[in-house]
Amino acid sequence: MTALKNGVGASADQKTRFFLVIMRLNLKFLLISLCVTVALITFALWANCGVGHGLVPKWPQHHGDGDNPFEQTEEIDCIINQEYAIGCRKEGEEVYLPFSFLQKYFDVYGSLNVVDGSRRFDWTHSYGKVNYPKGAYDPRGIFMYFENYNVEMRDRVKCISAIDGVPISTQWESQGYFYATQIAQFGLSHYSKNLTEPEPRRKTVEDGDREMATWVVPKGSSMNRTIVRGTTATAPAGAVLSFSTRKSFDTAVVLPMDHVLDLVLSVDVLLKPNSTICVTLQNRETQKLYHVYYILADLLIGVQDENIYYGIGLNSTGAWKHLTRDLFVDLQKGLPQYASTDKRRKMRRTELKVVEISLLGNGSIDNLTLSTSEHISHFYDAAEWLIRHQDPSTGGWPIPVRRKLGSGFGELGRGWYSAMAQGHAISLLARAYYHSRGDKRYLRAALDGLKLFRIPSYQGGVLATFLGKYAWYEEYPTTPHSFVLNGFIYSLLGLYDLNSTAPANQSNEAAVLFEQGMSSLKKMLLLYDTGSGTSYDLRHFTLGIAPNLARWDYHATHVNQLLLLATIDPDPLISQTAERWKNYMVGKRAPHN
Amino acid sequence: MTALKNGVGASADQKTRFFLVIMRLNLKFLLISLCVTVALITFALWANCGVGHGLVPKWPQHHGDGDNPFEQTEEIDCIINQEYAIGCRKEGEEVYLPFSFLQKYFDVYGSLNVVDGSRRFDWTHSYGKVNYPKGAYDPRGIFMYFENYNVEMRDRVKCISAIDGVPISTQWESQGYFYATQIAQFGLSHYSKNLTEPEPRRKTVEDGDREMATWVVPKGSSMNRTIVRGTTATAPAGAVLSFSTRKSFDTAVVLPMDHVLDLVLSVDVLLKPNSTICVTLQNRETQKLYHVYYILADLLIGVQDENIYYGIGLNSTGAWKHLTRDLFVDLQKGLPQYASTDKRRKMRRTELKVVEISLLGNGSIDNLTLSTSEHISHFYDAAEWLIRHQDPSTGGWPIPVRRKLGSGFGELGRGWYSAMAQGHAISLLARAYYHSRGDKRYLRAALDGLKLFRIPSYQGGVLATFLGKYAWYEEYPTTPHSFVLNGFIYSLLGLYDLNSTAPANQSNEAAVLFEQGMSSLKKMLLLYDTGSGTSYDLRHFTLGIAPNLARWDYHATHVNQLLLLATIDPDPLISQTAERWKNYMVGKRAPHN
Repeated sequence: MTALKNGVGASADQKTRFFLVIMRLNLKFLLISLCVTVALITFALWANCGVGHGLVPKWPQHHGDGDNPFEQTEEIDCIINQEYAIGCRKEGEEVYLPFSFLQKYFDVYGSLNVVDGSRRFDWTHSYGKVNYPKGAYDPRGIFMYFENYNVEMRDRVKCISAIDGVPISTQWESQGYFYATQIAQFGLSHYSKNLTEPEPRRKTVEDGDREMATWVVPKGSSMNRTIVRGTTATAPAGAVLSFSTRKSFDTAVVLPMDHVLDLVLSVDVLLKPNSTICVTLQNRETQKLYHVYYILADLLIGVQDENIYYGIGLNSTGAWKHLTRDLFVDLQKGLPQYASTDKRRKMRRTELKVVEISLLGNGSIDNLTLSTSEHISHFYDAAEWLIRHQDPSTGGWPIPVRRKLGSGFGELGRGWYSAMAQGHAISLLARAYYHSRGDKRYLRAALDGLKLFRIPSYQGGVLATFLGKYAWYEEYPTTPHSFVLNGFIYSLLGLYDLNSTAPANQSNEAAVLFEQGMSSLKKMLLLYDTGSGTSYDLRHFTLGIAPNLARWDYHATHVNQLLLLATIDPDPLISQTAERWKNYMVGKRAPHN
Repeated sequence: MTALKNGVGASADQKTRFFLVIMRLNLKFLLISLCVTVALITFALWANCGVGHGLVPKWPQHHGDGDNPFEQTEEIDCIINQEYAIGCRKEGEEVYLPFSFLQKYFDVYGSLNVVDGSRRFDWTHSYGKVNYPKGAYDPRGIFMYFENYNVEMRDRVKCISAIDGVPISTQWESQGYFYATQIAQFGLSHYSKNLTEPEPRRKTVEDGDREMATWVVPKGSSMNRTIVRGTTATAPAGAVLSFSTRKSFDTAVVLPMDHVLDLVLSVDVLLKPNSTICVTLQNRETQKLYHVYYILADLLIGVQDENIYYGIGLNSTGAWKHLTRDLFVDLQKGLPQYASTDKRRKMRRTELKVVEISLLGNGSIDNLTLSTSEHISHFYDAAEWLIRHQDPSTGGWPIPVRRKLGSGFGELGRGWYSAMAQGHAISLLARAYYHSRGDKRYLRAALDGLKLFRIPSYQGGVLATFLGKYAWYEEYPTTPHSFVLNGFIYSLLGLYDLNSTAPANQSNEAAVLFEQGMSSLKKMLLLYDTGSGTSYDLRHFTLGIAPNLARWDYHATHVNQLLLLATIDPDPLISQTAERWKNYMVGKRAPHN
């Protein structure tokens, strides 16, 4: 994978979640929650700003004589490697170099901040974030630290398909495509959030019998609640709400809502041609109104002014379909195109409220619900996508875009397979098998997903070998091999998850592949160690070029992966390497001779 | 090898040689030499101090407002990675960090200097020195850039054995031992100096017939010049000077000398028991006298006050022996023990003069000569040592001390072999074969030296293989393999030298071994590339520990070796890697993703 794995944006997510938590609590818990708020803010400030001012140990330094050191401050030229000069400051025997130079020269980070009213400069060696496992890794539990991920909000996610309920990637092709790795990450993040977040607040607005809302039915339109039989697996049974209107919007059946801040919509819909269900959202600050339409079309996303359209698929015409839509995401993904002046401005979730739901044309709805989250629905949307899109002969999830990993590598043609996509999909399907209490479709798909691990990359599989000795599962099965580290480890987790979840008589292949991969990892892990960081892959070895150093978020991913593996494999090689690599992030280096 | 390869000390050598060159010139060249002096000094200043002050491009920086930036200088704390605080300076938006911190944090170098009357700070990323080849590498010419080496002056050389004329190492055992690598480096450096330095000034003082000196013969002692027959290979033919004295020093036959600054003594000697040849040296500044004795003993070196003793070997009793002694080196090696207050103080060569040569006991001398240098004699001393000390069955030069390369490696027992020693020895012997116009003893020894390259290290040879695929010649044939890079490349040079020098019908084995090694080098070279430097070996891979980063002099050796290989192998992998590794020395790094 490239840019998708890092936890950037997690902080914004956390704030959002924090507010939701507050809102969800009853009034009788208000006092407690206020205390928690204070504690959290204190913690956030502490986490953001590091240790307190007075507690920090001081580095021994030369000082100018006299009470006022600035009396001795002189300007002095620093000649850098006999190549160029920069302006420095000298006080006594100490020379001071400008950060603007150091930042570029060493690729470090720094910022002026005010803490407790006093100004300070925070020097940061790296921006990677270490995620310490809270306990031993559980293949039925949180996937790594993906509860912090917010896949759908990434810029490279075009939108969530309303046909499939899974993200569309624009990473390597701007028109958008299904990328199994991303879809699995989306599903795994929601599976993990489901385990870490509090129960959502969930309000059924209309279900045709128990909950009946007060819809406004214009003259000439009609609405009624009828009993339907569940003729298909996806069709609701019992009472549903049916509507019939003319084509113009002023004839729509409308449900006005007041101050609804729960932005995840769940609904069973059955639409006839030219029908739509529309949700009107309002920005509480600007009062601006936005309309999100779910229409009968094979359209992915369409935007016209403040109107954003998602197609639920022409082959849903006249058939029941369950939608789970994060309205905030659906609006956000339409906004960049909405107004060029507004481009890329990210709205906050808390700015929005639902003000209206309208039904136009002919159709029925049931179980219309608004909630703070519906993680498990998103998770199963991803699982079902994987079931539907697995190639029956290879067991793989082909990636439909070409990919050139870098100069010197052959291009991967459309339909290539990735060990990371396979591994992620298997991790997800193993959890779906567990969570569904044994739905064999998920187990079958996961087991089929192993096939490509045995097929060499030059024959279309994902298996590479390092000098004919060590088996490696390629995130990018390039020629020559690339040996991308993080994707390989993700694929190992998939194998581990399936081995731990599958019935004993069906887990052998995953077990063998996992052991083989772990053995290779232990042999090859140190090849990625540069003594001050890690390399992303081994292209320097296979192409004879400069190493492709891992930027800090990938380096942090390496560290996080090792920390996690250390909870399931006691070999000190794993934990010691994790520890050293973690230290690289604060500027500590391997020794030189 | 460990610390012996770097060119530290070359600068002092250069100065010494510079003065010698001046002295050697006739008066009529004085004017020219003065011009050269001025040019050299100018160059030295330039080389030392880098580019001129005004010519250096300026780094763009923030500046405080106002005419006097120091008005805005504030003290500010810099918090380093949330771990500790250092005192910094702030001017406007620019923050200045103290070099005392940066030096430790980044392992960089810097010094305050005065150039053209103005103070400046020189920032140096590394202390390694790049030696650009002057042309294509010639196996009959200079060995690498070893003309800059001064092996005998290294602290780890105990002294030059007067029995063998080669250095004694104390690197891994303080009592001293013969180390074939060092001996070959000694010989190769003198071979190279012989090619780069001007002809020495050489004065035969006494040869029994053409040159007859005025010896002072005390009463009771005798001296005469007689004709001898060259009965052995080493015995001179023709007239020699014979002497006979009693045991006390006041009976010695003495040749007083006036202001002799040429400090390399050559002499054929035949000593009877309890006889000695003694050279008295004087420090021209302190007037202090020193006596260097060459005695009939198996003593390596002995020191008593100002008297330094070298044994020429008991088995030289009554036999002719040729000595070539650098009196400056012989004195210097005796000095550290001479007086504890004087310990480690290095005398300059130009401080010394020869004031007297004395003969005590019974014996003969011939061809007594003082010269500025006798490089080829030293070279052949090394070549002969290699001939005498090659193991007849293995063709190797066993290293008689135990060696533990590092924690995790098995210890190399006494008598281990090194591909680097073999390669260096072969480089030297190939040159001896060439220089001697085909002395087959040297060729034979060099060819025999190849045998160990075919024997796996676990069977006592120097051959390792990388994952069973790539042949590698081990400087240290450890278990597990260590894959030290620089020693391997030195061994390749030996193979290349022999292949180029041996007659066509005997060069095949060296050619095959060289090609095999070059092929491995090209496959494995990038495993040493950390993106900001190089690793010394691959112990991180074989032991699963932190990489053993090459300190800058070894890194520079890697660069220099590649630059040299690039002159004999056009593969851009070599030259491009050399270029990138060179750039690491000024802080340029490989890109990250």
